[in-house]
Amino acid sequence: MKKTTIQVVENILNANDRIAIQNSDRLAENHIYSINIMASPGAGKTSFIIQTIKNIASQCRTGVIEGDTAPVTIDAEKVMQAVSIPTTQINTGGNCHLDAPMVSQGLDNLPLNNLDLIMIENVGNLVCTATFKLGSHKNVLISSIPEGDDKPFKYPGMYRSVDVLVINKTDLLPYVDFNMEYYLDGVRMLNPDLIYFPVSCKTGEGILEWSTWLLSQVFDTKLK
Amino acid sequence: MKKTTIQVVENILNANDRIAIQNSDRLAENHIYSINIMASPGAGKTSFIIQTIKNIASQCRTGVIEGDTAPVTIDAEKVMQAVSIPTTQINTGGNCHLDAPMVSQGLDNLPLNNLDLIMIENVGNLVCTATFKLGSHKNVLISSIPEGDDKPFKYPGMYRSVDVLVINKTDLLPYVDFNMEYYLDGVRMLNPDLIYFPVSCKTGEGILEWSTWLLSQVFDTKLK
Repeated sequence: MKKTTIQVVENILNANDRIAIQNSDRLAENHIYSINIMASPGAGKTSFIIQTIKNIASQCRTGVIEGDTAPVTIDAEKVMQAVSIPTTQINTGGNCHLDAPMVSQGLDNLPLNNLDLIMIENVGNLVCTATFKLGSHKNVLISSIPEGDDKPFKYPGMYRSVDVLVINKTDLLPYVDFNMEYYLDGVRMLNPDLIYFPVSCKTGEGILEWSTWLLSQVFDTKLK
Repeated sequence: MKKTTIQVVENILNANDRIAIQNSDRLAENHIYSINIMASPGAGKTSFIIQTIKNIASQCRTGVIEGDTAPVTIDAEKVMQAVSIPTTQINTGGNCHLDAPMVSQGLDNLPLNNLDLIMIENVGNLVCTATFKLGSHKNVLISSIPEGDDKPFKYPGMYRSVDVLVINKTDLLPYVDFNMEYYLDGVRMLNPDLIYFPVSCKTGEGILEWSTWLLSQVFDTKLK
């Protein structure tokens, strides 16, 4: 019984990885850079996407794929209302993560020949999302100050699997117990070369530094 | 292929449910009341458990089962250091939720004939944990103010599946955008009879009301 289960899961992963490669090829053909944004529920993924787009809109044509476990369009509507860019909504039907076939459908619904960047907002989940490749260039984790400074130690799989870390809600540092050095020690232990950006989507702190880095990645992809 | 997958998942759930019933019977034999505490990562589950135990220690003998995705004992140590009660740690080995067999092992490691209450701290996850019965009396969701007021709309499966809601970190209400009426509208839409307790583990607000309710449940179970 156990063997059957493992076999099926392996098959699903292989199928997912194959479609992730197709997604990656499709993005490359269109010279589009893409990031997969993962986080706990409520870390501020949607606000972060909106703040980023506001900063880069004049230099970069962006599309968004919004993943949700339910058929609600709150996040997609927030993005559309705030920045009016191509946005498509994926309802995972209760599933705890986006997978490559879902992202493939999302790409079908975006005007790929008119985009430089696609931001994929994954389901809020610090465990399951880390396992599924989507075909994006980089995996970005958004953590947030009120979540606490022990999260790298408690969710090592996620912290190991990402390329970029955004530490959001720095405006709440005066009001919660959060030891940045302890937190960063955990981060470095798991992922020594991880690039990180402390930001506040409320005050705008750090958004310029993050946007500058992101644009450099987008331009590199355009030149390829 | 799809049919095979569904079949295997159903088998796992049935096996889980059978062991959940065994757990439930074992708790009943020992007149122990038990709660399964679920939340996003960083909503404050461990602090909430510690605050609760401090409030009820003189009236109720409590044990704790700590679920973590990694072999870290941060939470178990925090509980032990703060309140010195029987605590056992379960490492899910990267899995995104506790299941009934894991809780059964947890029960093996606790002195059941000397306990009135067992608090189970599930893995931080607003999707997967809701699906697996553990055999506890009630499912308790801890939400937190900085997560935002849209969470019921975005994680309806979790909000529908729980019996009690604790709204933690009310001390942060002045510093974040959180419309309590909008949040509670979402809660009522999904789960009209849900009991809820606004609390702050930092200031102690609401902990007495919650503890009083919890003790009434524990005493009811003792009398059975």
